[in-house]
Amino acid sequence: MRNTKLKMGMVGGGKNAFIGAVHRMAAGIDGQIELCCGALSADPLVARESAALLGLPKERSYGSYQEMIVEESKRSADDRMNFVSIVTPNFAHFEPAMMALEHGFHVVLEKPMTLTTEQAELLQQKVAETGLILCVTYTYSAYPMVKQARHLVKEGQLGSIRKIMVEYPQGWLSKMIENGLSLAFWRTDPEKSGKSGCMGDIGTHAAHLAEYISGLKITKMCADLQTFVTGRKLEDDGNILLGFENGATGVLSASQVAAGEENALKIRVYGELGGLEWNQQDANTLIFKQLDAPTQLFRAGQQYLSPIAKHNIRLPAGHPEGYIEAFANIYRNFAATLLASMQGIDPREEDTDFPTVADGLRGMKFLETVIASGKSAQKWTNFIR
Amino acid sequence: MRNTKLKMGMVGGGKNAFIGAVHRMAAGIDGQIELCCGALSADPLVARESAALLGLPKERSYGSYQEMIVEESKRSADDRMNFVSIVTPNFAHFEPAMMALEHGFHVVLEKPMTLTTEQAELLQQKVAETGLILCVTYTYSAYPMVKQARHLVKEGQLGSIRKIMVEYPQGWLSKMIENGLSLAFWRTDPEKSGKSGCMGDIGTHAAHLAEYISGLKITKMCADLQTFVTGRKLEDDGNILLGFENGATGVLSASQVAAGEENALKIRVYGELGGLEWNQQDANTLIFKQLDAPTQLFRAGQQYLSPIAKHNIRLPAGHPEGYIEAFANIYRNFAATLLASMQGIDPREEDTDFPTVADGLRGMKFLETVIASGKSAQKWTNFIR
Amino acid sequence: MRNTKLKMGMVGGGKNAFIGAVHRMAAGIDGQIELCCGALSADPLVARESAALLGLPKERSYGSYQEMIVEESKRSADDRMNFVSIVTPNFAHFEPAMMALEHGFHVVLEKPMTLTTEQAELLQQKVAETGLILCVTYTYSAYPMVKQARHLVKEGQLGSIRKIMVEYPQGWLSKMIENGLSLAFWRTDPEKSGKSGCMGDIGTHAAHLAEYISGLKITKMCADLQTFVTGRKLEDDGNILLGFENGATGVLSASQVAAGEENALKIRVYGELGGLEWNQQDANTLIFKQLDAPTQLFRAGQQYLSPIAKHNIRLPAGHPEGYIEAFANIYRNFAATLLASMQGIDPREEDTDFPTVADGLRGMKFLETVIASGKSAQKWTNFIR
Amino acid sequence: MRNTKLKMGMVGGGKNAFIGAVHRMAAGIDGQIELCCGALSADPLVARESAALLGLPKERSYGSYQEMIVEESKRSADDRMNFVSIVTPNFAHFEPAMMALEHGFHVVLEKPMTLTTEQAELLQQKVAETGLILCVTYTYSAYPMVKQARHLVKEGQLGSIRKIMVEYPQGWLSKMIENGLSLAFWRTDPEKSGKSGCMGDIGTHAAHLAEYISGLKITKMCADLQTFVTGRKLEDDGNILLGFENGATGVLSASQVAAGEENALKIRVYGELGGLEWNQQDANTLIFKQLDAPTQLFRAGQQYLSPIAKHNIRLPAGHPEGYIEAFANIYRNFAATLLASMQGIDPREEDTDFPTVADGLRGMKFLETVIASGKSAQKWTNFIR
Repeated sequence: MRNTKLKMGMVGGGKNAFIGAVHRMAAGIDGQIELCCGALSADPLVARESAALLGLPKERSYGSYQEMIVEESKRSADDRMNFVSIVTPNFAHFEPAMMALEHGFHVVLEKPMTLTTEQAELLQQKVAETGLILCVTYTYSAYPMVKQARHLVKEGQLGSIRKIMVEYPQGWLSKMIENGLSLAFWRTDPEKSGKSGCMGDIGTHAAHLAEYISGLKITKMCADLQTFVTGRKLEDDGNILLGFENGATGVLSASQVAAGEENALKIRVYGELGGLEWNQQDANTLIFKQLDAPTQLFRAGQQYLSPIAKHNIRLPAGHPEGYIEAFANIYRNFAATLLASMQGIDPREEDTDFPTVADGLRGMKFLETVIASGKSAQKWTNFIR
Repeated sequence: MRNTKLKMGMVGGGKNAFIGAVHRMAAGIDGQIELCCGALSADPLVARESAALLGLPKERSYGSYQEMIVEESKRSADDRMNFVSIVTPNFAHFEPAMMALEHGFHVVLEKPMTLTTEQAELLQQKVAETGLILCVTYTYSAYPMVKQARHLVKEGQLGSIRKIMVEYPQGWLSKMIENGLSLAFWRTDPEKSGKSGCMGDIGTHAAHLAEYISGLKITKMCADLQTFVTGRKLEDDGNILLGFENGATGVLSASQVAAGEENALKIRVYGELGGLEWNQQDANTLIFKQLDAPTQLFRAGQQYLSPIAKHNIRLPAGHPEGYIEAFANIYRNFAATLLASMQGIDPREEDTDFPTVADGLRGMKFLETVIASGKSAQKWTNFIR
Repeated sequence: MRNTKLKMGMVGGGKNAFIGAVHRMAAGIDGQIELCCGALSADPLVARESAALLGLPKERSYGSYQEMIVEESKRSADDRMNFVSIVTPNFAHFEPAMMALEHGFHVVLEKPMTLTTEQAELLQQKVAETGLILCVTYTYSAYPMVKQARHLVKEGQLGSIRKIMVEYPQGWLSKMIENGLSLAFWRTDPEKSGKSGCMGDIGTHAAHLAEYISGLKITKMCADLQTFVTGRKLEDDGNILLGFENGATGVLSASQVAAGEENALKIRVYGELGGLEWNQQDANTLIFKQLDAPTQLFRAGQQYLSPIAKHNIRLPAGHPEGYIEAFANIYRNFAATLLASMQGIDPREEDTDFPTVADGLRGMKFLETVIASGKSAQKWTNFIR
Repeated sequence: MRNTKLKMGMVGGGKNAFIGAVHRMAAGIDGQIELCCGALSADPLVARESAALLGLPKERSYGSYQEMIVEESKRSADDRMNFVSIVTPNFAHFEPAMMALEHGFHVVLEKPMTLTTEQAELLQQKVAETGLILCVTYTYSAYPMVKQARHLVKEGQLGSIRKIMVEYPQGWLSKMIENGLSLAFWRTDPEKSGKSGCMGDIGTHAAHLAEYISGLKITKMCADLQTFVTGRKLEDDGNILLGFENGATGVLSASQVAAGEENALKIRVYGELGGLEWNQQDANTLIFKQLDAPTQLFRAGQQYLSPIAKHNIRLPAGHPEGYIEAFANIYRNFAATLLASMQGIDPREEDTDFPTVADGLRGMKFLETVIASGKSAQKWTNFIR
């Protein structure tokens, strides 16, 4: 009988922070996780106000992540937080994550996981040492129809994969809005965001999705990166030719200056026998195009889906689930795995299907390769190991 | 500073109950409501197991709604539940709702509100007497793009309304599945569901949506009801010609035997100057067709939307919100109104935009008129007052 | 070896006439028919100018249909026109058609076939007497994916049909434009158009399509007709409940005041096992929704289609064919049947698949029933025999 | 008064030839061009049979293009063909085109225009010398909504262009079908098709479309070409990074092994202020995405379109026009320009909007650059001048 709610502490995510609120909704929707404490802002006043708005007890509204980790460690095992969710800008991922792991707390971390590949490797080592769980929120691979896509590829319904087209156009940075909008501000500042802009913010999602669905690793790439908006410090657009381990090719295109686009992540995977198409903005449909047979529309909530897709769906067909539910799938699977770990039992296989430190590290290597390829005059740059 | 979480008690919604789980997700997503107690099943064993699964304390897992209402009433004002959410089959709506109101508890109730119009009127009287809030979960009018549609009509962008086409095709009852599936079982049993089947289950949503968006009341109708599946006790399909107060006409078509359809609620409203189209399965888009100008696509999350639409959205454009989020809008608005009431202040206007006992009563009169029209040989039957 | 081009004479269709130009394009596209003569306008000057623009020889540009029929009759069998295409407003269909038949000419006629049912019956008798072919251009049933839909129903892939929803919204008459636009003018004038407006112009297409795809006859109806635009003489909108011979029900909705709509003819047919959906504005796709299996998209030009669908397609998949090609299918099938008849052989079955005088007569009875039902206070009016 | 029909002679396009039939339908639909003679096949027997099927007089069914050009030259100016339409495989374009020009005949030619850039340059010189018209059938830029897209870019509605994504996935060569299917056979044979396969067959359409809509020239590229099907002699897939003269970037992706795709040419153009999207398989809609305003759908046949778009439309909105009509726009504009030339007057500007020898030559240079880039280890290869 599973009735223990997991206790979550949050770093970042104060009032007006977008992604922190998403994490709380995602963690809260399934009733298995409760926010018990937070260091919700680097500004102690904002942290306190935010905690009050969220109904946190005063004594568990901390002024810093260090304080939170130290103080929670002192509480009894029953009472202290079980894991830390870190929803700060990129530059403030590594230190709280490392400290949390060092104090025995599991971690949920936003992507890209760190500022540098070195930091990512240190986290991976620490996870290996401690046996703790570090989950990285590559949200889009958590959609049920993405699970179905991966399942169809695995089953061989496409035959050998030949071509992968993945694109992620957004338009919200089409103008110079960095100075007015905090969301835009840190994402375009190399010190806060890392060496890449658009690619770190959204390109890494696209790469993760391509590898997740196809089960194939990118082995080389040819990147053309651009900064279209005058005065911007990081690239806001990029097109990349891809090579995969089995000889498949592809294109990854990401943009934050595709004026008029919202969040139009889309992937197409073609094999010898057919092609799959999935579009995040129409997330409950997976299109399966076949050679010499009618195109099929797989729909979330239907009984004919694979078990792994159904495991990540809450509602009957025709009741759309969206971004928060996909995000919640990560938290739900993470929580189930964590609970199993706490109970000393093996998690169910379907519960272990969430991105971990290995995905986070791979994301960092992807970004490093992208930057190297962007600067190179050679066509191909090998994926950095 | 808003930090009080509202406490919810639930009647029905034990394990395997679909709609109870939806209510809990919807209530939980925004972090303002917590489930504090429940009488989760008419079967005490199931009730207890369900409560344990949800992490409810043993002493607040009640064996019946009567027990819950009595026991919670004995608790201190700070500690007792603030409202009851009733998610039982139709036949078990009225008694717990009435008892809750009589003991001073606010109520959230599934639609159709009651078994009979008389019961609905009794609830309305009790609400008027007590000043308590009774919210009826007509989910679909809580979608943000439905709010935008209502706004555009109100603003006069369509001119005078001429025609309203609303349809709600489902296919899940295409075969005789009543005996095997509890969801289907009570919905097709007149004693548990009321005098109508398809119309009570989904037709009433369509009627509510049409009146909500257009701001117009249905004044007459001509119904053709059918039971296509042999042995079924209630209608599983119906087409209704509609007349509205301003002379507009329309069609309401609902079916649970539209084989291959999921939950394809769709509405089109045409006025002198243009037409609106909204499809629940593509909920984040509102199509605005204009005379002599390009069709416009309004999209959830965009800055150009009306304040009332934005009030019911959590995420930026391109991050789809779905059924649970729409449902959560009802809970969130209800909760904000309830909190204002508890604090003795006027709620914000946008928070009061949720369906109440008046909508529930109107729904019952709609069903009564549908049944009367279905039996009549005359073309038109006036909407029953 | 088939190398004879059929010779067409045209009544109506002078310069600026919309539908006459469509007939000429449709007749011309497949290279089997050539325009040899015409009485292109009731105004002799316009007739002559139009003939010159079309490159007709002066001596075969006639001042009236009477003159054309008489003069062409005098020509040798090799030289004279083989058939007459009549593309005048409704009121000017019957006389030239009857005279053409009386002089031994085959006829292509626009819908609705005549002004009255009596005229339609006279034409049917004359066709029966003479053995000539009279083709009525119900364009929409000539689309290849409509053929595929009919095929799937015939094959039993939907099981017994339960429900048919057909709709035909247009918006072009949303305002009072009759006085300025000749297309609108005669369509809204009872003397030129007949007793019905919207239903005669487009509703009859919808009814034909429903019966064509389903293979079922409408047996009763309940019509609500409206004239929304002040000063208009005929109905510009209507919603009709339908009953079919096998007990299936349905709705036919047509409007010319659905502001913002173009020519959005759409049909859905539901049976026990699945549903079909076809939308004229996306004509190359047929959607097949199934119980408990993914929805399938049948696409024009694919090899997996039925022979009757392929017979009506010119291009490989992905090369869209449209309205003119559908129209041309009627001419092509008519021409092949006529050629076979001229050669004294049986036409191929697939060539005989075009609407004839029987369809034209049925269309007139449909309109008569619609008008009777519209005036009746009873719910149901039986389809007039 | 325009009543002269132009006379067309055809080289290639015998029975069972796909593209020849398309040319005849396209030339025939508007009633301004008639097929007067042909050398319809390299096989004299097939040529004669094909001519008979098309109703050509025996004496104008020629055994070779040489015979046709010589014999037609001997006829009187009124009687002889006005232009030659060449619809043979690529390797048989140059010689008949050159000979036709040398004998004073205008030419319509399929793309890619020739086998080599040198041949293309020779044709361009001959056109310049003779003042004759050579039209190359880049069909897709003839769609009305493509004209509208070009118009919106020209008008500045997108601001400066930043990014162009053009893709052309087909799936029909997913398997090794060369030996059985003549269409596939010559397209994959270097001696008949030229040095490129997929890029010459469809990639060149995509490049033309990108330059046509944007008004920008490609200046550099980085091509990754693949042959996925074992035993195939030419590339069947390719992805190309693009650079444009104004600094815009882009991707061109074409494939004939994108299993399950039909003919899914699609282009997106993004500028500072918005983005355009057009999909050939939904050809009557142009999507205009705007910053901070609802997305607009421009639809063929609407009054609000630009004059150049309307010039290329035959039907009112909602009556879909397709591939043949687009193709016919080229013939219609070519014919009008040719007629003006024959009458010694200036053609109307809108009539001159069809692809000419300059477009054909640019297409050959595009292919040459693609091949060079595909072989290069450098990232960028400049567009060959």
